[in-house]
Amino acid sequence: MTDLAKRQLDDLAAFGGRPMFDSVLPIGQLAMPDVERFFGYARDIYENRRLTNNGPLVQELERRLAAMHEVDHCVTFANASLALVVLLHLIADGRRGEVIMPAFTYVGLPHLAQWAGQFPRFCDVDAATHTLDPAAVCAAINSRTTAILGVHQVNSPCDIAALSDIAAEHGVPLIFDAVHGIGCTRGGKAIGGFGRAEVFSLHATKLLNGFEGGYVTTDDQLLADALRSARNFGFAGESDVAALGLNAKLNEFHAAAALAGIDRLPDIIAVNRGRVAAYESAFADLPGLGWMPYADRGDTLNYEFALLRVPPDWPLSRDQLVALMRAEGALARAYYSPAVHQSMHCPPGAETGLTVTEQLAREFIQMPVGELVGAAEVACLAEFFRFCHAHGAAISARLTTDGVVR
Amino acid sequence: MTDLAKRQLDDLAAFGGRPMFDSVLPIGQLAMPDVERFFGYARDIYENRRLTNNGPLVQELERRLAAMHEVDHCVTFANASLALVVLLHLIADGRRGEVIMPAFTYVGLPHLAQWAGQFPRFCDVDAATHTLDPAAVCAAINSRTTAILGVHQVNSPCDIAALSDIAAEHGVPLIFDAVHGIGCTRGGKAIGGFGRAEVFSLHATKLLNGFEGGYVTTDDQLLADALRSARNFGFAGESDVAALGLNAKLNEFHAAAALAGIDRLPDIIAVNRGRVAAYESAFADLPGLGWMPYADRGDTLNYEFALLRVPPDWPLSRDQLVALMRAEGALARAYYSPAVHQSMHCPPGAETGLTVTEQLAREFIQMPVGELVGAAEVACLAEFFRFCHAHGAAISARLTTDGVVR
Repeated sequence: MTDLAKRQLDDLAAFGGRPMFDSVLPIGQLAMPDVERFFGYARDIYENRRLTNNGPLVQELERRLAAMHEVDHCVTFANASLALVVLLHLIADGRRGEVIMPAFTYVGLPHLAQWAGQFPRFCDVDAATHTLDPAAVCAAINSRTTAILGVHQVNSPCDIAALSDIAAEHGVPLIFDAVHGIGCTRGGKAIGGFGRAEVFSLHATKLLNGFEGGYVTTDDQLLADALRSARNFGFAGESDVAALGLNAKLNEFHAAAALAGIDRLPDIIAVNRGRVAAYESAFADLPGLGWMPYADRGDTLNYEFALLRVPPDWPLSRDQLVALMRAEGALARAYYSPAVHQSMHCPPGAETGLTVTEQLAREFIQMPVGELVGAAEVACLAEFFRFCHAHGAAISARLTTDGVVR
Repeated sequence: MTDLAKRQLDDLAAFGGRPMFDSVLPIGQLAMPDVERFFGYARDIYENRRLTNNGPLVQELERRLAAMHEVDHCVTFANASLALVVLLHLIADGRRGEVIMPAFTYVGLPHLAQWAGQFPRFCDVDAATHTLDPAAVCAAINSRTTAILGVHQVNSPCDIAALSDIAAEHGVPLIFDAVHGIGCTRGGKAIGGFGRAEVFSLHATKLLNGFEGGYVTTDDQLLADALRSARNFGFAGESDVAALGLNAKLNEFHAAAALAGIDRLPDIIAVNRGRVAAYESAFADLPGLGWMPYADRGDTLNYEFALLRVPPDWPLSRDQLVALMRAEGALARAYYSPAVHQSMHCPPGAETGLTVTEQLAREFIQMPVGELVGAAEVACLAEFFRFCHAHGAAISARLTTDGVVR
């Protein structure tokens, strides 16, 4: 990071000025595990030559995670995508039907339903929590529905009680994409123990960093057994295959990385919370801008993201600000934009009338977070936004002339 | 390993005796990379925080592998299964059809076709090479065929010329499962450059050990681009998705492990060749037993497996010998048995008349190999087989009485 403040338009990196950040500020957590602890595990792995296929570290990690999420079973996978594909396949129970999911989420989600032989069915979300609107789920559920896939958001878990009632009433399995729910609770109970199963990620950009990896939590013994078989080619015993499977195993190195970081989780969450507060404080005098509030209903949240809301009447558009920030070395991103159903390759199942989703998809900037973003970087970004606000009209005109972004 | 020879039936571990091998002898290669080189890479990964998403080590590995296989493009994947699923999906080009594949292969293979939305269509194999019988492929090909999937075997690559002619005549893509073809050639050209694309594995049990991982080699630029997009959720650019995708990326740690081992490949193959020769020599005086010959047609082979053929009139059956060896700590396995179409969970597409496959599936023991199996272990196993031959009738009777295995 340099201390070069912006004094004129030419100072903006988008217009040829020197970027504010010498090393790029990410939007993912990139929380690094205890390096020496990781290397200690790694040497053991080498010496024992037990690299994969349900090794001792995978088993230890599964025990730790099951305890953390207060569930009977944790089944690790090579990544969260594969975990979701396999889970959706298993709970569809041979049917080729529809998975109800929010349209305001990660753009890859409907694809995972497709790999599982299912079709996505998009529902709108609640404007405050960004999670599945139970009324929309009620309207969408039908005889083809094979699953309701709720997605917990960083600011709030799903309306678990309402979704559970709907699922029970219609006899449809309810599962959760809980990638943003690690370390969180609802009603005092850890996320991970709701619905038929919940899916988490160990990707490097997430709070618990296994570099890659994912896992499913469940209290359902039969489902856990089926997940374990499917992640290992469907093997039953040594040489025969009893169910559809593939290679979706986590190996020992990823388990080692996650184990080397798991004890840091409370600290990471505390730092995240401080960063969100620092953002709010540093941007407090900036007119018009607001922050996505973290729901205060007694839930524990992990403060993973800092989401800045840019109103339509601000001097620069949300997308212009993202382009300007990226030029400065701050990897901001338009948050969940385009909405999933408006993506270029939206599978069959695109819906109309997803008005809350479409509104939310226009509003937010996902701001830099993670260990590389401290108080100094936050102050620097606030100063940058003040400059953008003061010179908004001129910057916008030049961006439009230069063809960068409207 | 102990030096306890077997002198009486009670000495057999299956009957309560002390196992011959204190640490288990594997059937996979488990070739360990240069540990310090791996740790050097790992520290760089930590310091640069570039863990996944097409990082510098993945790019370096892809360059090295493309050069080794003499192809334009290498695209790495989280594992070979995912590489095959994505490849089969892409070349099916939106159709839901049949993939022609051998029935004498890895039992998980038809499942990968299913995940790609295709149905397996099994063909018989040639008795000498264990690879797809071109006449059987001709008989099976039809308007629903979306791909011919040849599987190179350890003893021989496929009949590439004949399969290429059939594929060209019918306008069907030809691809190869080349997991056993690493370091091998056909007609002086490296395996990896044949057909539309070839798929390799970096699993710990394979010659090039990335712990996990896989890759596709191809000279087809469009296919390589599509593979790269699909392995990263189908992303086109920063935030939009242009094609069906999922998370199937290799990360930097696996690339580091493979890079730390790649220069050892010629040595590993030389050691493998020596081990196969040692097995043949040590077992030469054992009546009836034979070894799968490595085809001598000027091809370079990698001598990955040692496959022992047990004739039906031997004093102990193939499956009895496998059970006895496993009790002794030698993880022998019945080779490709049951045949894929006779597996418990065979998908639709099971064929009859696969007589060569069914014969081969009865014959072979996959013997222990890899760095942990040297001349001493081979001699020990030969001595064990001599004991089994001398006391075959009595052992067989006791195994049957004990209900172990017929």
